[in-house]
Amino acid sequence: MESKLPSIDSVFSVDCVIFGFDAGELKILLIERNEEPFKDWLALPGYFVEQNESIDNAAARILYELTGLNDLHMEQFHTFGELNRHPQGRVITVAYYALIRTSSKKELRPISQYAKKAFWHPVNDLPKLAFDHTKIFETGFSKIRRRLNTQPIAFELLPEKFTLTQLQSLYEAIENRKFDKRNFRKKMLGFGFLKELNEKEKDVSYRAAKLYRFDKRRYMKVLSDEGGIEN
Amino acid sequence: MESKLPSIDSVFSVDCVIFGFDAGELKILLIERNEEPFKDWLALPGYFVEQNESIDNAAARILYELTGLNDLHMEQFHTFGELNRHPQGRVITVAYYALIRTSSKKELRPISQYAKKAFWHPVNDLPKLAFDHTKIFETGFSKIRRRLNTQPIAFELLPEKFTLTQLQSLYEAIENRKFDKRNFRKKMLGFGFLKELNEKEKDVSYRAAKLYRFDKRRYMKVLSDEGGIEN
Repeated sequence: MESKLPSIDSVFSVDCVIFGFDAGELKILLIERNEEPFKDWLALPGYFVEQNESIDNAAARILYELTGLNDLHMEQFHTFGELNRHPQGRVITVAYYALIRTSSKKELRPISQYAKKAFWHPVNDLPKLAFDHTKIFETGFSKIRRRLNTQPIAFELLPEKFTLTQLQSLYEAIENRKFDKRNFRKKMLGFGFLKELNEKEKDVSYRAAKLYRFDKRRYMKVLSDEGGIEN
Repeated sequence: MESKLPSIDSVFSVDCVIFGFDAGELKILLIERNEEPFKDWLALPGYFVEQNESIDNAAARILYELTGLNDLHMEQFHTFGELNRHPQGRVITVAYYALIRTSSKKELRPISQYAKKAFWHPVNDLPKLAFDHTKIFETGFSKIRRRLNTQPIAFELLPEKFTLTQLQSLYEAIENRKFDKRNFRKKMLGFGFLKELNEKEKDVSYRAAKLYRFDKRRYMKVLSDEGGIEN
């Protein structure tokens, strides 16, 4: 072996699976790419890691450049290194995810010319994505699903004040099944981590529902000490 | 953007954290490197990913070449991509772990000239390791610790028939604390996943203890349905 690195023609990229919950729907962030040969392809926000940046910094920079979002807490979840996953050569990609409170009203604005636009799309009806991005999304989504009962995912995705219907919609979206309304409420209220507020929804056309917030200390305790929430 | 990959001078490697439990001690597999400029350095088994192999295949090949072990179920757990983590240039490494039943009697035999030897070393008394391998080990060890109560780790590390003392030693090694013997046994037996055998240890100089094996179905059920084991 020489005392230098082998010459291998490969590059790293990062790809971001950003989950947001808006109007009762679980969504992820997509971009429409703008450069040949991938013009108009829909993809997860992702790009190449530069020579002189750590992969964590690259993930934050690239997400910002392609969508305008910054200051997210992103966590690495898997590295995809199959041969031929990218048509231009050997690209190994490190995938990150984040969960954020979102709103369709908040504007997404790519800084980089590589993205024509960035937008939220419901997870249940994803279009065909570039490269192996569908697989990357699915791996991230299944990770979220496994963590739903042991990590404060609902806290990260819901607004500070929320209704029990919103909470149930979130669980239903992540687990992709319906829960009985009465049982779900009974069980969730039984944990003691929901604090009923002296407030109701505003500006709704139906009968306004009560608002709740998480008692975060108690929520964390249920998630960790008691082995999680099972529905 | 050109329709080809950017020219970035970087390579991938894989590093393996292989946990084994032998004679009441939790150990990991280390190699002594054989090539300049790293001659005599102690390191995790790891090396560069070739141009034409997936990272999963690379991990299996490299572990085999450096230690002679094969057919392990290795799982990726984190990718380390800090700048300057490797003295020869930009190397991003994907770390894998595996848990195996081991025995100091089983011979380790490097195939590759890059390893002078391979050996098991107790996790509690690790020497200084090459590069950021101490950090990689610690990340893998903390992942094992978090999974101890939710994944069949004890099943993978213990021999098929084991004593309650061995089981307690394993928990103590992973959690790095002592348990009260009576409470530990009462709790473990209470789960109902230990099957008492009509057999005792053989060839021991002290009073032979009863042997147990896992009722694997019941063990998996306790780990998943009931939210895990808490000590």
